[in-house]
Amino acid sequence: MTATPFFELLHTDPVGARRGRFHTPHGTVETPIFMPVGTAGTVKTLSSADLHTVGAQIILGNTYHLFLRPGHTLIAQLGGLHRFMNWSGPILTDSGGYQVFSLGAAQPGAVRIREEGVVFRSHLDGSTHFLSPETAIQIQEALGADILMQLDECPPHPASRSYLAQSLHLSLRWAGRCLAARHPERGQALFGIVQGGMEADLRRESAEGLVAMGFDGYALGGLSVGEPKEQMWEVLSYAPALLPTQQPRYLMGVGKPEDLVQGVACGIDMFDCVLPTRNARNGQLLTRHGPMNIKQARFRSDAGPVDEACGCETCRHYSRAYLHHLFRSKEISGLRLMTLHNVHYYLQLMAQMRLAIQQGEFAAFRRHFFQQRSSEPV
Amino acid sequence: MTATPFFELLHTDPVGARRGRFHTPHGTVETPIFMPVGTAGTVKTLSSADLHTVGAQIILGNTYHLFLRPGHTLIAQLGGLHRFMNWSGPILTDSGGYQVFSLGAAQPGAVRIREEGVVFRSHLDGSTHFLSPETAIQIQEALGADILMQLDECPPHPASRSYLAQSLHLSLRWAGRCLAARHPERGQALFGIVQGGMEADLRRESAEGLVAMGFDGYALGGLSVGEPKEQMWEVLSYAPALLPTQQPRYLMGVGKPEDLVQGVACGIDMFDCVLPTRNARNGQLLTRHGPMNIKQARFRSDAGPVDEACGCETCRHYSRAYLHHLFRSKEISGLRLMTLHNVHYYLQLMAQMRLAIQQGEFAAFRRHFFQQRSSEPV
Repeated sequence: MTATPFFELLHTDPVGARRGRFHTPHGTVETPIFMPVGTAGTVKTLSSADLHTVGAQIILGNTYHLFLRPGHTLIAQLGGLHRFMNWSGPILTDSGGYQVFSLGAAQPGAVRIREEGVVFRSHLDGSTHFLSPETAIQIQEALGADILMQLDECPPHPASRSYLAQSLHLSLRWAGRCLAARHPERGQALFGIVQGGMEADLRRESAEGLVAMGFDGYALGGLSVGEPKEQMWEVLSYAPALLPTQQPRYLMGVGKPEDLVQGVACGIDMFDCVLPTRNARNGQLLTRHGPMNIKQARFRSDAGPVDEACGCETCRHYSRAYLHHLFRSKEISGLRLMTLHNVHYYLQLMAQMRLAIQQGEFAAFRRHFFQQRSSEPV
Repeated sequence: MTATPFFELLHTDPVGARRGRFHTPHGTVETPIFMPVGTAGTVKTLSSADLHTVGAQIILGNTYHLFLRPGHTLIAQLGGLHRFMNWSGPILTDSGGYQVFSLGAAQPGAVRIREEGVVFRSHLDGSTHFLSPETAIQIQEALGADILMQLDECPPHPASRSYLAQSLHLSLRWAGRCLAARHPERGQALFGIVQGGMEADLRRESAEGLVAMGFDGYALGGLSVGEPKEQMWEVLSYAPALLPTQQPRYLMGVGKPEDLVQGVACGIDMFDCVLPTRNARNGQLLTRHGPMNIKQARFRSDAGPVDEACGCETCRHYSRAYLHHLFRSKEISGLRLMTLHNVHYYLQLMAQMRLAIQQGEFAAFRRHFFQQRSSEPV
């Protein structure tokens, strides 16, 4: 357990949305916040200067990818992940577990889970590696992350109740080992991850076990893994309340813009997702009125910006017709301009929600958000 | 013939290097200058803001590519190429001829040259198109270029003397038709292109024919097309002197950094080449000491910048090790960072040459340039 006051809860809206501040060695993050995903030491297509331009406060790094290439030892030698990628703001790293399990699921036999940890094969070259709670912490500390995540097992969906129970017990034991392995004097926060699938009592058991150990924050894992969306919202209707009010809550791997709005309403403080970056590279752009696909022929001669209410570099300077042309011509510059827009959209959405919560108007904001999306086709 | 004073020759160094100024509807270009190539409405991987950041004064657009996709009519509807790609500085467009001939050479029978113009097949979809001197001008005027190029035939290398002679006569007739077709009141400059292969008397005949018609500037075409480099330098030893002193001279499609330095020494004012952008995407970076390939294993843990004397964003903020990692991980952001460096290197090299000419020290600059390259391995 750490005594460092990482998180300040500033205000809670009547709906339950929370406005807070998370203090890290690399600066303060205003919550609720979305963290762009920087898989392999870069948020795909963007530079660190771009991240500042679009208003990123904190980014996520993938331990699995960085461990395999270029390796955490090399990154540590070069001064840590912040210096390596020239990002001076906070970084959260995952434990590597999610990629081990999700990439492993694609190749049968590639992942073996034991009490000690997990043996897996690299998706790059098939080489065998071992990830334990202790090595997961060691790697993340070497990377120099501001927020570390415990190693947990991400059970597949669907999974039997007995599998889920067994899995969450393993994850709880791993959580304890992560806490024991980390070096609190370094000032890096460590989050526990609540598992338990869609079973309310298992979620409770997981949350209570973690809270008893005392983490700096708590994540909800095992959601948005292929289950019907109603099931995720069901879990979100009770799971945040199982967690301490005074600590941050992170909903892992979520989601679409509407999920962020609903997630904030459920009292979530932190989100991450590859959706804004990945969709940009597929030509899907986000607007107030919903997503649009720039590939469509109707945008060929459209002189307007992606979203006329958007203030990003892409919307200020380039037309839909230009982006359509760049995408069709497979121009890399187009992928970056579209990523800039989508990430800016996500971060602006979070900024608007923070303001609405502060002003006690989150319910009105949410109503307006959903009205806009249904009011007008893109 | 136009009376607009596009070009001012400010100073000629004893070596023969020239310092000038070219005035266009979108601003003034300090010469000698290198023009980054924006093939399809974008300098590959870069945005227009990036071009400003690296100090681009003028860029080149490819008529062939823009004609086929998205089409000059659409670009004109959208306000012209400047607005389409959000580039407020000058643009030079080629005539489309070079791509017609070079891409056509790859597919036998795809190009038929006639007195009226050239029939060719699109490399995108095989559709048949016709490009004449008149349509080449019409397209470039519609794009809104500041400098238009005449349509010429680019003969293959090697070509017989009789072919070269016949070809240059055709190009001269096309030059006259381009002059007749353009609208001088629009303030767009038009350049003629000297052909004649490696034959001194044919180069002279071509230059004299063009000068008699009176263009706003003159290009040397048909060089750097696969001939031994000595042959290009032989042509450059006499061809610039065939052209009017008071008008700009453009060496098309050239070249490596050392070619720019030698070209300036020969009295060339303008250059373009895909080399800095294309090589960046292949991991080849330019430094004071020569090119380096970032893929090499020795850069894996190299904490230094690409070139410690370079002030570009990439060199100020990122290590060779990081660029090596991004390249090996196929990260798009790495291609952009490396392109930023290479284009910055080219434009800085030109800026240094302009200063050296102004100070009457071009010979010393050139000596130093070649000493640096041989002094130390990269």
